[in-house]
Amino acid sequence: MKDKLDQLREILGEIKDLSYASAILSWDEQVNMPAKGSRERGEQLATLGRIAHTKFTSDGVGELLEELEPYAKTLDPDSNEARLIKQTRRDYDIQARVPSEYVSREARATSAAHQSWVMARQASDFSLFQDNLQNIIELKREYSSYFAPSEHPYDPLLDQYEPGLKTLEVKEIFDSLRPRQVELIKAIAAAPQVDSSFLYLDYPEKDQWNFGVAVISDFGYEWDRGRQDYSPHPFSTSFGLDDVRITTRVYNDFFNSGLFSTLHECGHALYELGIDPALARTPLADGTSLGVHESQSRMWENLVGRSLPFWDHYYPKLVEVFPSQLGNVSKESFYKAVNKVEPSMIRVEADEATYNLHIMLRLGIEIALIEGSLDVADLPEAWDQGMEDYLGIRPADQAEGVLQDVHWSMGLLGYFSTYALGNLISAQLWERIREDIPNLDDQIRRGDFGELLGWNREKIHRHGAKFEPQELIERVTGSRINPDPYVRYLAEKYSTIYGLG
Amino acid sequence: MKDKLDQLREILGEIKDLSYASAILSWDEQVNMPAKGSRERGEQLATLGRIAHTKFTSDGVGELLEELEPYAKTLDPDSNEARLIKQTRRDYDIQARVPSEYVSREARATSAAHQSWVMARQASDFSLFQDNLQNIIELKREYSSYFAPSEHPYDPLLDQYEPGLKTLEVKEIFDSLRPRQVELIKAIAAAPQVDSSFLYLDYPEKDQWNFGVAVISDFGYEWDRGRQDYSPHPFSTSFGLDDVRITTRVYNDFFNSGLFSTLHECGHALYELGIDPALARTPLADGTSLGVHESQSRMWENLVGRSLPFWDHYYPKLVEVFPSQLGNVSKESFYKAVNKVEPSMIRVEADEATYNLHIMLRLGIEIALIEGSLDVADLPEAWDQGMEDYLGIRPADQAEGVLQDVHWSMGLLGYFSTYALGNLISAQLWERIREDIPNLDDQIRRGDFGELLGWNREKIHRHGAKFEPQELIERVTGSRINPDPYVRYLAEKYSTIYGLG
Repeated sequence: MKDKLDQLREILGEIKDLSYASAILSWDEQVNMPAKGSRERGEQLATLGRIAHTKFTSDGVGELLEELEPYAKTLDPDSNEARLIKQTRRDYDIQARVPSEYVSREARATSAAHQSWVMARQASDFSLFQDNLQNIIELKREYSSYFAPSEHPYDPLLDQYEPGLKTLEVKEIFDSLRPRQVELIKAIAAAPQVDSSFLYLDYPEKDQWNFGVAVISDFGYEWDRGRQDYSPHPFSTSFGLDDVRITTRVYNDFFNSGLFSTLHECGHALYELGIDPALARTPLADGTSLGVHESQSRMWENLVGRSLPFWDHYYPKLVEVFPSQLGNVSKESFYKAVNKVEPSMIRVEADEATYNLHIMLRLGIEIALIEGSLDVADLPEAWDQGMEDYLGIRPADQAEGVLQDVHWSMGLLGYFSTYALGNLISAQLWERIREDIPNLDDQIRRGDFGELLGWNREKIHRHGAKFEPQELIERVTGSRINPDPYVRYLAEKYSTIYGLG
Repeated sequence: MKDKLDQLREILGEIKDLSYASAILSWDEQVNMPAKGSRERGEQLATLGRIAHTKFTSDGVGELLEELEPYAKTLDPDSNEARLIKQTRRDYDIQARVPSEYVSREARATSAAHQSWVMARQASDFSLFQDNLQNIIELKREYSSYFAPSEHPYDPLLDQYEPGLKTLEVKEIFDSLRPRQVELIKAIAAAPQVDSSFLYLDYPEKDQWNFGVAVISDFGYEWDRGRQDYSPHPFSTSFGLDDVRITTRVYNDFFNSGLFSTLHECGHALYELGIDPALARTPLADGTSLGVHESQSRMWENLVGRSLPFWDHYYPKLVEVFPSQLGNVSKESFYKAVNKVEPSMIRVEADEATYNLHIMLRLGIEIALIEGSLDVADLPEAWDQGMEDYLGIRPADQAEGVLQDVHWSMGLLGYFSTYALGNLISAQLWERIREDIPNLDDQIRRGDFGELLGWNREKIHRHGAKFEPQELIERVTGSRINPDPYVRYLAEKYSTIYGLG
């Protein structure tokens, strides 16, 4: 059986190499590629993807799995070997259930949909996108049907990004969360607003860059195992366990974007850099879900980077770098400014208090579209009404409203809720961390993040994708994903900042 | 047959995509990769290479070729289709003749040899490398035996880099060249030396970089189809016909390296950027040989970049950028300095007059090693004696002598002569260009390179690898590779610079 397992590892290793190669090509496309290289790069990425898919579905993986599964039952179910076989079975069944004819049909449809979305958004005219979106929704229902029977037709979509999580469970989480977040935002809206005007002064890009680099060096990002570059949309990406890179963007007329993007992407990268080398070149050498991944990025961005202990340490250093911009601004004012709450039209610019509401709005709509309880034709109005109900603001036009985001046009339904789940998980882990590291604030106040990183490495990072997200979180915190810690976190934080009762 | 040809094109296209992907991974490795990424990158490159090899040798390419070859005979022999089939047959026979068992054996041997060379060079002790080199030589003889009978055992090695060229032909070329170059160098050595001390002042790197960028922009390098980065060893690489990149290195205490590396690599890149798009994603979308490739890099570096008309145009601009370094240096002195002849220990730093002698020395030794007329044990002395005979200098130790260069340790025998052939071809083309563009000097004096680039595009670049090097050069110049133009070029240039009789 050792022999069969080695055969499986060999195939999976080659597939992992191909996926790393694709990641390198994509990174280069976004960071370095000259404009005219894009058509050929697309062909190269398509070829790598096709070869990996063919290898996985036709190089005897199915037979190896059938031979190995009885053997896996004899192993410690938490062993790397047993988990590898389990995870490979999961991936294999998904790829085997979805006909490759469907995959190419979907690729064509999303390509057309994306183009029409770009035009529709430019013209702020949903009708230009409507038929293509309708087509996407039908394809997603078809995708779901390959996994019938499922508890809910949205389950297979969600499962791509949050393995094992069910739609009803997510709904329950968000139903419990929503009224409490809406209430908080109303209370904040009634309080005097904080001043953040000094964040919009001229902050030279190079100085911002260097400050971010210094902070994530303190966090424990290892520069001989990664690097940071500029790109229009910040992201993190892995080319192996020892080459995990991040990108950022820096605006010279708005301070928040550069630093917090850097901290956020560093959080993602620290996760991947902490994966146990024993899992290398296997499907387990990855984050376990987008939600858990986002819990790591949001933890370092927000729970650390937007906390008062953090600025106790870094604010004097920041003032040294930007004396003319911040010399007259107190640490407390700065802390309040980077935590300012203000309902806005789009998730990517949202603060911690309003962020999840954007997600919940979209999730509700996605589920309704897949269920068929909402018609695509009625979507623009449903969007605007949702914005009003959740955030108390109404988009000026369809570009700012229903057309604001790229995900649907790329066929990425099921993806969005992971952004909010990441917030919830980060707070849930944080409560546990505070118990395990009672003097955490003091450590952060000294710029010492070693124990915090060590905790995350030990509890989360090293396991890679061995455990499904809910299983992992329950192992670490004693309960499945639970919105209460996040609500407590927001309430405490904002009652101080906004002086709420 | 159209259908079979499409099948072949599809396989070759995927293989080309894989080879572009490998090029991207290698470029990144040399330009960007964090230190610890190298082990995993090696695995990824091995996987891509193995998949490409398997695809080429087992996806029915052999059968398709057999079906297509009778059809190719009905086509215009110069058509892209006929040439594609011919070239694919050539590549296929090479890959089919060499057992994959040999390939892995050689990979292991060169890996060991390279490590031992690094140590031997550090210790300046050839004995640490000797057994490994012996092993490499035996492997190269074995490689050659797979192509028996050949006119000369070195032929199959040479043929990898200069398709169709024979050892005896190269020997004949170099035998005719050597005495004339040796004589020239003696005459130069007897003349008063030129002053080049001002090239070693402090030249800020950024200014050097920008100057090089301005020059190659004038040459016609298109920045939306390429880019330049720093790397320890300058190189050019293609990720497709519309993404051809170069790298350079810049020293702040020596002017020549940065600018002339940039011009050199730009010459390589212009070749690849000029390939006919109809050849895209086929084995013909490439330079036809290393020698012809080098003719393009050396043309832009030397025949253009080290010429007086070039500096007529650029020297005033250069003095503007470096007034304190060059304000008191006349154009003529500068021109002489960048053309200074001085026998040196290693090719990479050699001037135009001595460069080829380094190549001829190594080529003679390589051939003798493969023939068996020189024992590996006698190599250090043969090297030192050759340096004395050819260049009149003797290495101080083995590190500076026989161990100076990496090629042998990587199993790259047959490669070196292409460096000298490039010089010869560049001068041969140049004589033809002067006939076709009589006022070329005036154009260069105006910084106008359009017609020169157009000529190379039309005669050389667009054909890619359609024609073997000798065939291509004969088509363009009317004769096969001929050393006379290069000798004439050197004699004329240096008689002016060194005031020879």
